[in-house]
Amino acid sequence: MHLHAIIPAGGAGTRLWPLSTAKTPKFLLDLLGSGSSMLQDTVRRLAPISQGITVVTGQGHVKAVSEQLISEGGLGADVSVDIVAEPTPRDSMAAIGLATAIIHQRHGDCIVGSFAADHVIGDEALFHECVLTACEVASRGFLTTIGIEPTHAATGFGYIQGSDPLDIPFGAVRNVAGDPVDMPAYHVANFKEKPDETLAASYLAQGGYWWNAGMFIVRSGVLLNALKQHHPDLATGLEKIAASWDTQARDEVMGKHWPELTKIAIDHALAEPMATAGLVATVAAPKSLAWDDVGDYEALIRLRTGSGNEREDGSDAKVFLQDSAGATVLANGLSSVAVLGIPDALVAYHNGQLLVTTRSHAQDVKDAGSYFA
Amino acid sequence: MHLHAIIPAGGAGTRLWPLSTAKTPKFLLDLLGSGSSMLQDTVRRLAPISQGITVVTGQGHVKAVSEQLISEGGLGADVSVDIVAEPTPRDSMAAIGLATAIIHQRHGDCIVGSFAADHVIGDEALFHECVLTACEVASRGFLTTIGIEPTHAATGFGYIQGSDPLDIPFGAVRNVAGDPVDMPAYHVANFKEKPDETLAASYLAQGGYWWNAGMFIVRSGVLLNALKQHHPDLATGLEKIAASWDTQARDEVMGKHWPELTKIAIDHALAEPMATAGLVATVAAPKSLAWDDVGDYEALIRLRTGSGNEREDGSDAKVFLQDSAGATVLANGLSSVAVLGIPDALVAYHNGQLLVTTRSHAQDVKDAGSYFA
Repeated sequence: MHLHAIIPAGGAGTRLWPLSTAKTPKFLLDLLGSGSSMLQDTVRRLAPISQGITVVTGQGHVKAVSEQLISEGGLGADVSVDIVAEPTPRDSMAAIGLATAIIHQRHGDCIVGSFAADHVIGDEALFHECVLTACEVASRGFLTTIGIEPTHAATGFGYIQGSDPLDIPFGAVRNVAGDPVDMPAYHVANFKEKPDETLAASYLAQGGYWWNAGMFIVRSGVLLNALKQHHPDLATGLEKIAASWDTQARDEVMGKHWPELTKIAIDHALAEPMATAGLVATVAAPKSLAWDDVGDYEALIRLRTGSGNEREDGSDAKVFLQDSAGATVLANGLSSVAVLGIPDALVAYHNGQLLVTTRSHAQDVKDAGSYFA
Repeated sequence: MHLHAIIPAGGAGTRLWPLSTAKTPKFLLDLLGSGSSMLQDTVRRLAPISQGITVVTGQGHVKAVSEQLISEGGLGADVSVDIVAEPTPRDSMAAIGLATAIIHQRHGDCIVGSFAADHVIGDEALFHECVLTACEVASRGFLTTIGIEPTHAATGFGYIQGSDPLDIPFGAVRNVAGDPVDMPAYHVANFKEKPDETLAASYLAQGGYWWNAGMFIVRSGVLLNALKQHHPDLATGLEKIAASWDTQARDEVMGKHWPELTKIAIDHALAEPMATAGLVATVAAPKSLAWDDVGDYEALIRLRTGSGNEREDGSDAKVFLQDSAGATVLANGLSSVAVLGIPDALVAYHNGQLLVTTRSHAQDVKDAGSYFA
């Protein structure tokens, strides 16, 4: 069965203000200095294993997304990209559900996979092997997640608690090159919310817990049936919209039913109840996958290459640091920045908006982000 | 005798970077939120007691100075303003000496007074009384300074050590309204460089020391004669330039002799040797004069009214402070600023240049200023 990738590209987040804002969300930015946006990187990464890619984004971002993915020669990636515009945000279940319903209607029962638009993955080949293994598991009817082997007692991620291993016959999964892949997968007992440090440490000590990377791979028919069972109203609304999608009535039907759809995340809507019913599995990815959700400045600082201080003329801002060991300056657009006497300072500027803090207050940035939202 | 005021308007300083730079020196800026520049405030303050005002400034600032003082209706102050352009900076003795020589040539022996372009004075009427008293003292042949009664053991100012009081007969000095002024004046024993804290504290404990406000009031003939005695080459050069000033040869003579003039501050060139010879006096101004040289961010923060965060549209920048008690944000031109977890933070932005530090590092700003100069 072929994979149809779905990328919900929404949510401004506030933890990377002022670099990421409602107008310039993370996925549209080259936050890591890779030379392309996180969305572009995501599409390029998925292209070799996807039949098609559907990006679900807010009306206000359709133009930018289209420019990044389609207008400029389609990234050079050999995959068709569809954009589904949301008139208003209705959370991830509506976004993924609508894309799934449209794909199901066009292609029949197939595998859909939902992937965040703004995560980073270090080992792309390994990522392909994880997802292809997840496709095999999904083809058996499971809602399949990717679990990341924890490197430390992180409190910023949700956790997946595994149980019995699944038996995947040797040769059932092959990588892009056609070689057999041997990646372990497990039944999922439970999803765990972001833990405190003590609990996170106990997960690590016990073993059998993985970071929830927020990817879901599932047969479209399984997803739509589960939605009918757990959220019949949402399922009905999405069915109506999907039925009209490739007709002239699309806008009218969308305009009527979209605003009424239940706002709920796929985690609560499907993943948790299906886990309780024993219908969720996870592919256990080794830490060498080097996955990160780039959720805050700590992550950004850890992952960045390059200075992030490009001036309007293309050169870098001049930065003068004194008594400020460990300072980070992300001053795209400024000409000169001096930081004096603030160790671990974090200075981020974007388009007239300025953040001044220290690394130990990186978690408080969301307060500023909310204030200015 | 009438007072002719001289305002040497030069020196970018580095301690208020990036607000004050070589291109936008302190005197051209409204650093205190008064609605006019410090130079404009200085001229307005001197106008009621001056026959004329001569501003000596760098070639590069003539246009801006002229716009601020002359083009826009002359400040509404009833005083004539002359601008003397320096092709290159030759320190304060050359600047004040040239202005004095020109005034002396045009008006004969009269009183000249040199006043910084970028200081602030709280009580203007009291200032007039100080200067008018200084004029009386100067008319007797003294190089006369204004000493400020210290409010604390400041290490950022030079000090004047007084000795015997001068006898000024009641009624000899009258203020702008014509009422008699009774302000004490003293012979000056010594000028003291900026002291360390221990020494400054001992000055305060001993009494008889005043802050040197850098103002010099003196008969033009006395100044020019003293210059001949202590710096004959400098005196000769200035004489030649002054002789040509109101002729067509001005530019040629200026171009030839100005670059050869000795670079020296008036303090070292005249004030110190004349004090040794008993020829310097000081008018002792009470602390209620509220004089300040606005020499660094500490002073600026102390003196400012208003937020200093005006945006391009005229409204103020939105500022979000959290766990940052005592923070100061001077963000003229930015739209939003967040400071998180940095008590006493000092954030100053001007025209693409950004300073991030804390109040306790205000003295280090000069290092950044020098780096970017």
